[in-house]
Amino acid sequence: MRQAGRYLPEYRELRARTGDFLTTCLTPEVAAEITLQPIRRFAFDAAILFSDILVLPHALGQSVRFEEGRGPVLGALTRAADIDDLAVRGLVDRLAPVYETVRRLRTDLPAQTTLVGFAGAPWTVASYMIEGGSSKDFATAKAWAYQDPVSFQRLIDLLVDTTAEYLIGQVEAGAEALQLFDSWAGVWPEPALRRWCLDPARTIRARVRAAHPDVPMIVFPRGVGVLYETFAEECGAEGLSLDTTVPLSWARDRVQTKVAVQGNLDPIALLAGGDAQRAETARILDTLAAKPFIFNLGHGILPQTPPEHVRTLVDQVRAWRAPA
Amino acid sequence: MRQAGRYLPEYRELRARTGDFLTTCLTPEVAAEITLQPIRRFAFDAAILFSDILVLPHALGQSVRFEEGRGPVLGALTRAADIDDLAVRGLVDRLAPVYETVRRLRTDLPAQTTLVGFAGAPWTVASYMIEGGSSKDFATAKAWAYQDPVSFQRLIDLLVDTTAEYLIGQVEAGAEALQLFDSWAGVWPEPALRRWCLDPARTIRARVRAAHPDVPMIVFPRGVGVLYETFAEECGAEGLSLDTTVPLSWARDRVQTKVAVQGNLDPIALLAGGDAQRAETARILDTLAAKPFIFNLGHGILPQTPPEHVRTLVDQVRAWRAPA
Repeated sequence: MRQAGRYLPEYRELRARTGDFLTTCLTPEVAAEITLQPIRRFAFDAAILFSDILVLPHALGQSVRFEEGRGPVLGALTRAADIDDLAVRGLVDRLAPVYETVRRLRTDLPAQTTLVGFAGAPWTVASYMIEGGSSKDFATAKAWAYQDPVSFQRLIDLLVDTTAEYLIGQVEAGAEALQLFDSWAGVWPEPALRRWCLDPARTIRARVRAAHPDVPMIVFPRGVGVLYETFAEECGAEGLSLDTTVPLSWARDRVQTKVAVQGNLDPIALLAGGDAQRAETARILDTLAAKPFIFNLGHGILPQTPPEHVRTLVDQVRAWRAPA
Repeated sequence: MRQAGRYLPEYRELRARTGDFLTTCLTPEVAAEITLQPIRRFAFDAAILFSDILVLPHALGQSVRFEEGRGPVLGALTRAADIDDLAVRGLVDRLAPVYETVRRLRTDLPAQTTLVGFAGAPWTVASYMIEGGSSKDFATAKAWAYQDPVSFQRLIDLLVDTTAEYLIGQVEAGAEALQLFDSWAGVWPEPALRRWCLDPARTIRARVRAAHPDVPMIVFPRGVGVLYETFAEECGAEGLSLDTTVPLSWARDRVQTKVAVQGNLDPIALLAGGDAQRAETARILDTLAAKPFIFNLGHGILPQTPPEHVRTLVDQVRAWRAPA
């Protein structure tokens, strides 16, 4: 999950001076500094690049801006011909600021801190591109996929190609691991989930592996429930990020036997703090930490989270030892 | 799922003359007429009472109103003492209009049409009572549960008691089956899900059974993924309503072997119509219809759904035959 953000006073202070959100993501000096803020404070084992999944549609020529209190606003794709207008050529140049951020981070991060690059998965990114922003039910994007799967496939394929290229570029700039966020995977019936989420993730995984065999990838198919097991078996990633609702013993028996798992503290338990946070954290560690595991939240940290709760969490995770 | 609603021109026409949404729900003549509208048009096997889950908090003395384009707005509970101010005494009188609607429907519905009563499950209703309306992340309600489980349990217990009483009242007025909607069950880690969703559903199921042993109940723990199997084993309901994301073969093997299942056409496949709707419908029927099964949507119908798509759906479901 994003480590930097509004819960940190130093982030709010810096952001007050750095203009709009997208420009902030695309200004290497600032994006690198924001990436470093939580590392300085908490010394996490890994740093995740500060950026946004909508950097890619922006680089494809779509208008993208972030409005305070409303979230992202995109010039929505409304017909198949709009897909052909996306600017695939010259993509590398337009993504250059992100690569530059990654390069700076490889220099500035402590040697023991793994640098994680990321991108949005094709369906999640496509949903913003078609809905023109966040959505309650994804009716427009999903109806497009149901009514005109041929052109929808063209959009997904374009995003598979460019996302793989984007992730390879991040590795070549210095990213040591990658994460693919499919935040809205959990809205599809199984056949559509396979076509629009699982197959694209597998193709992206394979493309990046062909270029850089040693860089691990974590996929986050949020909300796919029972089909986490299918993702573990079929998507080819080294790790899966578990959302908060995935039962731990099931994940241990059905998912962690196949891939490393990451997760899945409820961000609202972290917001609440105290006994609930401690008990939930202990439960996760005791069930999953003895096998390949990355402690993380099950979804993004909330802006109103007290940073001291994160401190307590880090201390508890670091102090955990496998029962003798 | 709700059968009446804005997708029907006769509903929009009637609602234009009947004042605010809550008053409409609590005016027996109008609520009964709205319940009958989709039955006249489509002759479904069962009719679900037209009402709203927030009728209960309203009857408990909380302020509830529905704003066009914003949804429900409640005078939010903000501290434990607010729970003690809820007006449990005299509840039956304040719910009398709903019972009167049910009585009218038993007279007005065709004899072969099963009348289904319903209520919101305690967690889902509590979330509205604390958040003061819909919520993106349920941060306030969930943080309350994490930080002060004692008072949160008191609210859940109060809702268990009153919901059981409310459902028993619906049966005594003529409801022939019941559904319990836990629309927001899918936001909790397992232990909290068991405490705030599964245990309350089991208690409500048992209370209603003690009063009326022959009335079946369907529980809809939307979004619980892997834990649908646990609900099937432990909540005591005769049926479970499957959301759109539940894989069909898994549901057949793990859930339908224990209880009847209901679901789970993607409402956006129904909105899209055409080949996608037909293929998705066939897939559901072919996988689930040979065992105890109720065809339904996996979530509520969208207002922009063409009624002709529902017609096509009903015809396809009625024409289905088990492979010889």
